[in-house]
Amino acid sequence: MVQKAKYTLKVRNYHIDAYGHVNSAVYLNFLEEARTTFLEEMGVSIEDLLKQGIFIYLADIAVQFKKPAQLGDQLEIWGWYDEVKKVKLCWRQEIVNSVSGELIAVARTTGAFLKQGKIIPIPPEIRQKLLAFLWKPDR
Amino acid sequence: MVQKAKYTLKVRNYHIDAYGHVNSAVYLNFLEEARTTFLEEMGVSIEDLLKQGIFIYLADIAVQFKKPAQLGDQLEIWGWYDEVKKVKLCWRQEIVNSVSGELIAVARTTGAFLKQGKIIPIPPEIRQKLLAFLWKPDR
Amino acid sequence: MVQKAKYTLKVRNYHIDAYGHVNSAVYLNFLEEARTTFLEEMGVSIEDLLKQGIFIYLADIAVQFKKPAQLGDQLEIWGWYDEVKKVKLCWRQEIVNSVSGELIAVARTTGAFLKQGKIIPIPPEIRQKLLAFLWKPDR
Amino acid sequence: MVQKAKYTLKVRNYHIDAYGHVNSAVYLNFLEEARTTFLEEMGVSIEDLLKQGIFIYLADIAVQFKKPAQLGDQLEIWGWYDEVKKVKLCWRQEIVNSVSGELIAVARTTGAFLKQGKIIPIPPEIRQKLLAFLWKPDR
Repeated sequence: MVQKAKYTLKVRNYHIDAYGHVNSAVYLNFLEEARTTFLEEMGVSIEDLLKQGIFIYLADIAVQFKKPAQLGDQLEIWGWYDEVKKVKLCWRQEIVNSVSGELIAVARTTGAFLKQGKIIPIPPEIRQKLLAFLWKPDR
Repeated sequence: MVQKAKYTLKVRNYHIDAYGHVNSAVYLNFLEEARTTFLEEMGVSIEDLLKQGIFIYLADIAVQFKKPAQLGDQLEIWGWYDEVKKVKLCWRQEIVNSVSGELIAVARTTGAFLKQGKIIPIPPEIRQKLLAFLWKPDR
Repeated sequence: MVQKAKYTLKVRNYHIDAYGHVNSAVYLNFLEEARTTFLEEMGVSIEDLLKQGIFIYLADIAVQFKKPAQLGDQLEIWGWYDEVKKVKLCWRQEIVNSVSGELIAVARTTGAFLKQGKIIPIPPEIRQKLLAFLWKPDR
Repeated sequence: MVQKAKYTLKVRNYHIDAYGHVNSAVYLNFLEEARTTFLEEMGVSIEDLLKQGIFIYLADIAVQFKKPAQLGDQLEIWGWYDEVKKVKLCWRQEIVNSVSGELIAVARTTGAFLKQGKIIPIPPEIRQKLLAFLWKPDR
């Protein structure tokens, strides 16, 4: 079971490519925007972190494209955490068409907090907030 | 052993984000541009395919970010195929800093050819060209 | 005097370039998104128009950059029309920092409606809606 | 009469928007990339300037869109200077289809050099190089 955060957006003209669908790179903008908004809703601001020289570095990202999104589609991005370790974070995100309910894409992103180019432990007050959205096996 | 295709580019102002590095989404533009140029060098044009209603659909993409690329970095993208099946293609790409030789990112992308929304076998004359860049185990 | 439409957004990581400010091209995405949302709020959907083969073509755009926007800035885009002619439209937009009230950028965009590559008169039911946001000299 | 610098590029999948043409914001990326490459060919590197805390700030940009560019189009961007004043620069750029010779867009951009947020005179050794590409009236 897991508590999920929700972010919504509408597919715009400039998100579409020559194939008539949302371009693959644009999904990464959507996913990043959703992760950032998610953190903000918890009270964690990436601009405040940046002023302390801290930023969130992506180690890897994997996206499965299930169904293309099209101009005007209303999308929901659902996010939660798969892992919240001492230094490592793993996000899960699902992009869903709000109207049809169809699954558009699934993403898994791993990251860490960096300060002056070095990995640091996830700041404890942030880690505490993230744990609320950590996936836990049902029993 | 494998024959690899090479694509080069320079990191520009608008590729960089607030963290001072190439943004994760921008790498997907780089990788797409390298794959397309690679096909063109083989004589396969995505605009000619599109006129026949054919396009290359990405099923999934996975990128590992090894080291951030910075403004002015000269990058090389090396590409080849891991799999060239009847309907499915798997690209491998490595982004390397041309000067330092450091590995910037590694990507694996799976795709297929679509015509009017349906997966079709890879056109045989294209498949033939792709096979030259297929990875084969050494022996 | 004029009635203005308002669109708000927050400056994200991927909007920033190597200079640490919102990249000039990204402002055009902001302005387009604001114009589209503005039309939607009037009941005009660009995806419905597109289904009829109609789209809004930009003839020119001019932007003055007054003050750079930065990561985390909350922006307001105010829009209205300077001209609503038979075939030609002229938008005015101002981007303002919501907190400080500072003017970030001013834009003037001229466009027309195209159908199958030919300029058509602005559809009367749309023209009617646009007139509500047309600037009129005070007297 | 004027000496012009030339930059070439090919229109890619992700440059196109839902209207099937190059998106207006993408032209600003093209224009910026051409201006930067132009400077580099003169021996002026924006990353070297940035290390000294200097960057080129855009004051305004005006683009006229003459004819839409499409997937696979080979474009030429021709650039020169209209004005090279003590602190102010004015670029002119024309985007042309390499094959048909058709004019795609015309742009005029004004900028200045900034150091720690303050406008500085154009560094004399750079100004000297720019003057070679300054438009002069025929006589």
